Amino acid sequence: MDRILLGHGSGGRLMHQLIGDYLAPGFDIKTLDDAAVLDNINHNRIAFTTDSYVVDPIFFPGGDIGSLAINGTVNDLCMVGARPLFITVGLIIEEGLEVNDLKRVLSSMRNAAKNADVRVVAGDTKVVNKGKADRIFINTSGIGILEDGIDISGSRAVVGDRIILSGPIGNHGIAVMSEREGFVFEPPVYSDTRPLNRLCLEMLSFTKEIHAMRDPTRGGLATTLKEIANASGVGITIDEESIPIDPGVKGACDILGFDPLYVANEGILVAFVRPDIAEALLDKMRNNPYAKEARIIGEVIEKPEGTVLLQTAIGGRRIVDMLSGEQLPRIC
Amino acid sequence: MDRILLGHGSGGRLMHQLIGDYLAPGFDIKTLDDAAVLDNINHNRIAFTTDSYVVDPIFFPGGDIGSLAINGTVNDLCMVGARPLFITVGLIIEEGLEVNDLKRVLSSMRNAAKNADVRVVAGDTKVVNKGKADRIFINTSGIGILEDGIDISGSRAVVGDRIILSGPIGNHGIAVMSEREGFVFEPPVYSDTRPLNRLCLEMLSFTKEIHAMRDPTRGGLATTLKEIANASGVGITIDEESIPIDPGVKGACDILGFDPLYVANEGILVAFVRPDIAEALLDKMRNNPYAKEARIIGEVIEKPEGTVLLQTAIGGRRIVDMLSGEQLPRIC
Repeated sequence: MDRILLGHGSGGRLMHQLIGDYLAPGFDIKTLDDAAVLDNINHNRIAFTTDSYVVDPIFFPGGDIGSLAINGTVNDLCMVGARPLFITVGLIIEEGLEVNDLKRVLSSMRNAAKNADVRVVAGDTKVVNKGKADRIFINTSGIGILEDGIDISGSRAVVGDRIILSGPIGNHGIAVMSEREGFVFEPPVYSDTRPLNRLCLEMLSFTKEIHAMRDPTRGGLATTLKEIANASGVGITIDEESIPIDPGVKGACDILGFDPLYVANEGILVAFVRPDIAEALLDKMRNNPYAKEARIIGEVIEKPEGTVLLQTAIGGRRIVDMLSGEQLPRIC
Repeated sequence: MDRILLGHGSGGRLMHQLIGDYLAPGFDIKTLDDAAVLDNINHNRIAFTTDSYVVDPIFFPGGDIGSLAINGTVNDLCMVGARPLFITVGLIIEEGLEVNDLKRVLSSMRNAAKNADVRVVAGDTKVVNKGKADRIFINTSGIGILEDGIDISGSRAVVGDRIILSGPIGNHGIAVMSEREGFVFEPPVYSDTRPLNRLCLEMLSFTKEIHAMRDPTRGGLATTLKEIANASGVGITIDEESIPIDPGVKGACDILGFDPLYVANEGILVAFVRPDIAEALLDKMRNNPYAKEARIIGEVIEKPEGTVLLQTAIGGRRIVDMLSGEQLPRIC
């Protein structure tokens, strides 16, 4: 391979190769967790994360690149158990972008920041010649603080852990795709972009003993579970029938041949917890409006290590792997 | 104005309008300082900054987009008096980028991070379709810590302050432009991209009473001084003959009709300090290899507020304003 492919940005196998081969070595990027946890800032623990957003189109049902950029970075901080506090915004704008579109995106960012109770404290704006970007790209970086006793990582799942999924899968990816391609689904599908910090705060006030937590964005639920299985050196088994999928998403996936397990989400999470507290945590979560449909979808098993097994609705069993290419490019 | 222009990214008047009208309101971006200083993280003071890099071409004499992205964010943290510690990297890659070019950029980032003694702790990679970006754009965000007693801001310059410039101006902008346009200057011009944290540490160990400090990047020395004059509500007078300019830069500017005061720099700073410590600080700075040519180039005066006056080499006096358009787009 001598050139970068679209699939290198998919969240799947190619991206993992790229990160493993070129990005992680020599940097201090140690895991595939959503945020770095820094232990040595005057004895405080701070989480630090970054994400660039290149979603196409920039406006889609249920959100836009602005709300996505705020919520996405807020959620990345939440996934290591941090309380998000501060966000920076870096804009790369294509010459010729309509000012009204920029205003709309910025207004959406402001609302999202307010809704997630984070402060946007620094920004940067670059403009590139027409044809050298695609309307607007947004980077958001964020910092949050971690309370003592929290140690959440994709590498900490242990055998017996129950896997809680907070809500239905596939809404974001299908919403973006429908807008991009001009498809209309019935019922309509809206992105689930939203901040998960209140939900996570409620979960962590119930128990600090969450082992692993992730929001399954690019690459979908399948890729996230596979990453955790790999990083923790465990097996994972999930039950297809237990995974909530909205009717619009199901219909769209049936028609278009997408597997919803690989479709991106922006407002749900998976949490790995001890079996004895899983049901009680689930009850707690269901009181939050963003997790009313939370369910236990599976558990962690000893073997085969690094493997995700799906118990299918028709009684079969199949191995869930990462995508090697790209199902839906530029989904976030 | 209903569309974004290239000049909105210039660092000049249009960009200030864009930030003032649309970006700052509703966010907590309070000043035009290079980094936000956060006072309330468990009683620690942390600086937080972000910058996106879209320089064209990505390789140029003296550096590349990778070293630029590390050094630029390191320097933004330094300019508020912080000690840079951690960096995140967000890559937006155009499909088709040669992997060898990516490797070269990443290798340059690693070396720059090592040289500046900062750790790259988190990253993100997006890939967009061919023709929807320009090879590679890089966002770097950074955090650093501030010692007690440091309060540096572009709004804190006071009447009587001497203005120290750490080195010759215009090298970065001319180096990038020469590579982009295929010009060869004699002597050749190299970008001054480099980390200023050791220099700043030495300065702050000599005195914490630096009022304002900035690295004059986009928009050049003129724009930076004008910003400080505005933010501090003071006048500034500078002496043209005291401003060091390398022969290659001077020749290039003469031929091409550029004013070196507006050409971007990536490895120099201006510092505003009390007159009674200025000479001693200058002596201290000159021991650093990056500030051997440091000079006092002017001082802060009472009136006219918000104005920069240049005493020209031929004995005249002119007002130095911000550029309203764009002299050299995509310089960083």
